[in-house]
Amino acid sequence: MNVGIVGASGYSGEVLLSILLDHPNVSLTKVTSRKLAGQPVDSVFPKLRNRANRLAFSVSDPEELANDLELDLVFLALPHGVASGYAVPLCEAGKKVIDLSADFRLNSPEIYEEYYGHPHPHPDWLAKSLYVIPEIIKERWQTNQLIAAPGCYPTSILVPLFPLIKDSVIKTGNIVINSISGVSGAGRKMAEDYLYCERNESAKAYGLTKHRHLSEIEEQLSLAAGRDITVQFTPHLAPMNRGIATTIVVGDSGESLDAVYKTWEASYQDAPFVGILESDKTPDTKWVNHSNRIDIAATKDPRTNNLLITSAEDNLMKGASGQAIQIMNLLYGFKETAGLK
Amino acid sequence: MNVGIVGASGYSGEVLLSILLDHPNVSLTKVTSRKLAGQPVDSVFPKLRNRANRLAFSVSDPEELANDLELDLVFLALPHGVASGYAVPLCEAGKKVIDLSADFRLNSPEIYEEYYGHPHPHPDWLAKSLYVIPEIIKERWQTNQLIAAPGCYPTSILVPLFPLIKDSVIKTGNIVINSISGVSGAGRKMAEDYLYCERNESAKAYGLTKHRHLSEIEEQLSLAAGRDITVQFTPHLAPMNRGIATTIVVGDSGESLDAVYKTWEASYQDAPFVGILESDKTPDTKWVNHSNRIDIAATKDPRTNNLLITSAEDNLMKGASGQAIQIMNLLYGFKETAGLK
Amino acid sequence: MNVGIVGASGYSGEVLLSILLDHPNVSLTKVTSRKLAGQPVDSVFPKLRNRANRLAFSVSDPEELANDLELDLVFLALPHGVASGYAVPLCEAGKKVIDLSADFRLNSPEIYEEYYGHPHPHPDWLAKSLYVIPEIIKERWQTNQLIAAPGCYPTSILVPLFPLIKDSVIKTGNIVINSISGVSGAGRKMAEDYLYCERNESAKAYGLTKHRHLSEIEEQLSLAAGRDITVQFTPHLAPMNRGIATTIVVGDSGESLDAVYKTWEASYQDAPFVGILESDKTPDTKWVNHSNRIDIAATKDPRTNNLLITSAEDNLMKGASGQAIQIMNLLYGFKETAGLK
Amino acid sequence: MNVGIVGASGYSGEVLLSILLDHPNVSLTKVTSRKLAGQPVDSVFPKLRNRANRLAFSVSDPEELANDLELDLVFLALPHGVASGYAVPLCEAGKKVIDLSADFRLNSPEIYEEYYGHPHPHPDWLAKSLYVIPEIIKERWQTNQLIAAPGCYPTSILVPLFPLIKDSVIKTGNIVINSISGVSGAGRKMAEDYLYCERNESAKAYGLTKHRHLSEIEEQLSLAAGRDITVQFTPHLAPMNRGIATTIVVGDSGESLDAVYKTWEASYQDAPFVGILESDKTPDTKWVNHSNRIDIAATKDPRTNNLLITSAEDNLMKGASGQAIQIMNLLYGFKETAGLK
Repeated sequence: MNVGIVGASGYSGEVLLSILLDHPNVSLTKVTSRKLAGQPVDSVFPKLRNRANRLAFSVSDPEELANDLELDLVFLALPHGVASGYAVPLCEAGKKVIDLSADFRLNSPEIYEEYYGHPHPHPDWLAKSLYVIPEIIKERWQTNQLIAAPGCYPTSILVPLFPLIKDSVIKTGNIVINSISGVSGAGRKMAEDYLYCERNESAKAYGLTKHRHLSEIEEQLSLAAGRDITVQFTPHLAPMNRGIATTIVVGDSGESLDAVYKTWEASYQDAPFVGILESDKTPDTKWVNHSNRIDIAATKDPRTNNLLITSAEDNLMKGASGQAIQIMNLLYGFKETAGLK
Repeated sequence: MNVGIVGASGYSGEVLLSILLDHPNVSLTKVTSRKLAGQPVDSVFPKLRNRANRLAFSVSDPEELANDLELDLVFLALPHGVASGYAVPLCEAGKKVIDLSADFRLNSPEIYEEYYGHPHPHPDWLAKSLYVIPEIIKERWQTNQLIAAPGCYPTSILVPLFPLIKDSVIKTGNIVINSISGVSGAGRKMAEDYLYCERNESAKAYGLTKHRHLSEIEEQLSLAAGRDITVQFTPHLAPMNRGIATTIVVGDSGESLDAVYKTWEASYQDAPFVGILESDKTPDTKWVNHSNRIDIAATKDPRTNNLLITSAEDNLMKGASGQAIQIMNLLYGFKETAGLK
Repeated sequence: MNVGIVGASGYSGEVLLSILLDHPNVSLTKVTSRKLAGQPVDSVFPKLRNRANRLAFSVSDPEELANDLELDLVFLALPHGVASGYAVPLCEAGKKVIDLSADFRLNSPEIYEEYYGHPHPHPDWLAKSLYVIPEIIKERWQTNQLIAAPGCYPTSILVPLFPLIKDSVIKTGNIVINSISGVSGAGRKMAEDYLYCERNESAKAYGLTKHRHLSEIEEQLSLAAGRDITVQFTPHLAPMNRGIATTIVVGDSGESLDAVYKTWEASYQDAPFVGILESDKTPDTKWVNHSNRIDIAATKDPRTNNLLITSAEDNLMKGASGQAIQIMNLLYGFKETAGLK
Repeated sequence: MNVGIVGASGYSGEVLLSILLDHPNVSLTKVTSRKLAGQPVDSVFPKLRNRANRLAFSVSDPEELANDLELDLVFLALPHGVASGYAVPLCEAGKKVIDLSADFRLNSPEIYEEYYGHPHPHPDWLAKSLYVIPEIIKERWQTNQLIAAPGCYPTSILVPLFPLIKDSVIKTGNIVINSISGVSGAGRKMAEDYLYCERNESAKAYGLTKHRHLSEIEEQLSLAAGRDITVQFTPHLAPMNRGIATTIVVGDSGESLDAVYKTWEASYQDAPFVGILESDKTPDTKWVNHSNRIDIAATKDPRTNNLLITSAEDNLMKGASGQAIQIMNLLYGFKETAGLK
């Protein structure tokens, strides 16, 4: 089976590359990048030296990719608004597509426009795509052609919350979420704010009240609940390369800690990438960085009667590229952990 | 005027030393440390080379300090439970004491025991001491002999919250607080968890549901409200030396953003160390590190109707030693910013 | 084939564990640690959750390990002076041993005592052990029972220098070496100097004039040259978890850059873990961290006529545990890269 | 006395601003920046909130600055090649100029062109300017109108080396210098290489064989020696904001350690910013960061007979802006440490 990566110049593209070059079940035959076209992969990413000798970046042309008869599956690591311009012709040419952008994560073109600032370029395809966190999606998705891989913050939030809301263990609408992310979450973006000296020795909240990822968090939680769920979500930046630590406070609604753990254990008993920690532990990004695992834990505060849920993941792995590979593995019936040790 | 520092081997002791050596109004004549006794200050803290040539650590003996006729004011940078053993004889000998430990921060000996795990050693002195964040305390405190300097997290929370609750701008009890702290907040503590490789590239929540600082946060907020206030407080560690970034979500209670800013402006118009940021900005620890300033900002989420308050301070300055110096300046009628540029 | 790790509580032990749990050719059946005995591996190292469920630490007893009939090969991740007390009985019981400590790295018991401060506990075994950097050792070593895995700094220095000296491309004795290491090189050692706040935002030279690793660097270079080689070696610490960057200045001796690269290409044409970079590039630790690769490059300064050699490796991988696995792979005829992707 | 800063948008400009706003002897009346013109200083640099309320950036026009009758002294924090276009008209208008760029650091226009890639714009002014490290310059420089403040690496090298070479304590030409710098040394430069994730967890050599600062290092050392001195200088980057740690190996030439320390003590007995450390200590950037101090130490390796010199400074303070203020203090007869605590 042959796979390609479109737009592999960023951090998640680099991680995809690194995993796919060693994946036991697939061949990486195509890697494209507008700005890197013509350059050997291992001169751009010296990390891949001795591993990617022959591969070079080619131009990113939707037409040409659609006509590449060798390609079975394509990963899109492109900005939102750009990805769909590739996804549609590739799907029409019969290829499978796993899109790491936000273009097909939402069901509603209105909400897309509200959060991303421009009309959705292919609203008709929103209904044909599926938003897949493998651990929580229950419908048959493995035959779908176009899969939207979820965002980094949403994964860290939905894995612990989704089953609790779906199973009505959590009934309240009073949910406050705070996340701390490493700087790679911003991508390889050239902005003063992401210079080393600007982020080192600095912690701050950002994206207050309406971070883009909020749209997919609320859409998914509302699907789980069968009614509209609104949450308060505040992301923060801390000086580290990778990792997201999330703390969720669920306002008093009577749920017992026991019910929380029972639901998690039932939902995730066969999930190789979910670590359910004891209630007296809290997940730490250092335990999951460079792996596809997400750790979750919960405790109950007897004083406030609030439920506290914490999680940790590597934003470039379970929060992006690792999860995209996991999706591919399940889509093709490979071992779920193939390439993800 | 002559001042001394008892227990100056930790991070806050080192910062106190550094400020007091250059303070225009006082002489630092005594620095004690059980484990460093006999050693010159600048060989222990090479940062102070060329600035502290003559000074050496002496033994920490309450009796001897009480009898030191030269000393007017003593800063205690000791562990809780130990500090009061110095504070009481020093006060009885007529000296003023600014205690950076938790020993005199609470009014209630019961709550002290609940949070600190042992009975208060001098419960009778709790009523004689005052908890002083200079910006929020309204009573005449400058004649008091024993001042409790507040904890780092509480300062970052109380400066923005206290006046809003006192003035009934915030009426709800639904308050969720998340803070991110640099590692110096843990002190110079020898534990595997604080080794460089354990904290670097790591973010995590800790101290869930009942961090010690919660006791003084809630006692102060309850004093402001005139009724019991209970909050959800979760501290986090991030890989940086200094700084606390705090995010407070106040559940829907009708307060307007305008009222928030008006109360802040009225409360802090003459406060040289409070920076009130525009509503579209969020405080960043890098803007306040190495200074005694605390930045605060607020915004309102029109979707959730929640109020979001953010703050940032240097945990070793406004969160500890800088604030202790500010207290001294006000106690003796020096310029409030003396030694704190 | 069954392998064990003795003394797996430190950083190199943890990396060994992580690699061996997923190694395609061996079973990790024994993991010992005096201080962790009885505890499940994945509760001590949460990174290994979902991967090491059944394994627990057992006590470290040389006798008992020697009598464990299941064990074929044992890795020793113990302090110097302690490792040999295990190595000897294990070898006498017929097992193979790969020792990551310094106990068998030197040929001379006198130099061992000079650098390590105590007489070698088993001087007779020095002649029976072999110091193995697989890329540079030329004798038949794969039948040897006791292998000394080299130190982190020496590997970063010997891989580029050894063949150049052996082939007389470098003839001068005027060699100045400076290395910068991440903090994990110090191990999980409880000392104030390794606390997060002490190492963050800090760079410094240390171990001046006679760092312990100098002994093996000089012994190996002297073997390569067939005469005594003395070098100036200065290690430095920088605020990062992993990685060693080494800069070697070889005083004017007429060698051409072309000869340097020809010798490297001849020596390392089949070496999967050596990356020879173009002369206008300099190795960067970020390119090799979390891999077993070492990158090397050289340039000639036309002004000084000096040769400049730079290298980068992950001190815990190629500089310790990764190389130990590589040694095991070659010892047993596995693929050299097995378990090391 | 009124001073101005031209080009204050970078890191050294920001530090200059911060010091000058609190300097006891001068008024900062003018701050210019092409890109920030019109913006209030404290909205650009939130660190300066509550300290720079009235000041705003104005346009950077040489003519206009020259005609500003209020200005007595101007600091130039501009790129090389640009600074001289301001320095010349300002000097012609009778103002004093302290230039932090490289434009007036060299005596030779040929060497300037060789290292900076373009002809010197005002070669006639090279003879009128003076290169001033206050601790080592012996001629009467305080009446000079145009002062070149030295580079960060050169300061860390020249302070320890210059007097030793001048007094013939060091006679050899065999000098190998390695320096490790924090990332702020690169300035607030927008390049992928300086993004947080690119520099974090990374150490590497760069600028091999001919870093620009080499020109001023060699010119000054040659002046000290009275003959041409050529050195091998290799800078490195490490993941920290500030600080330079330098290690100098002086090849065997008979100098005694005693002579080294005697020369230093004689040269620096009245130097408030030079810390001479005992021979068994090595300077650490964390001891000097945020101060204008440079620490130096030396040891002799009895095995190689080489002399090892180490130093540490804050590249933005003693290596740039702090030293520029020190120069101003001496130029105007203020206390040498004024504004530099």
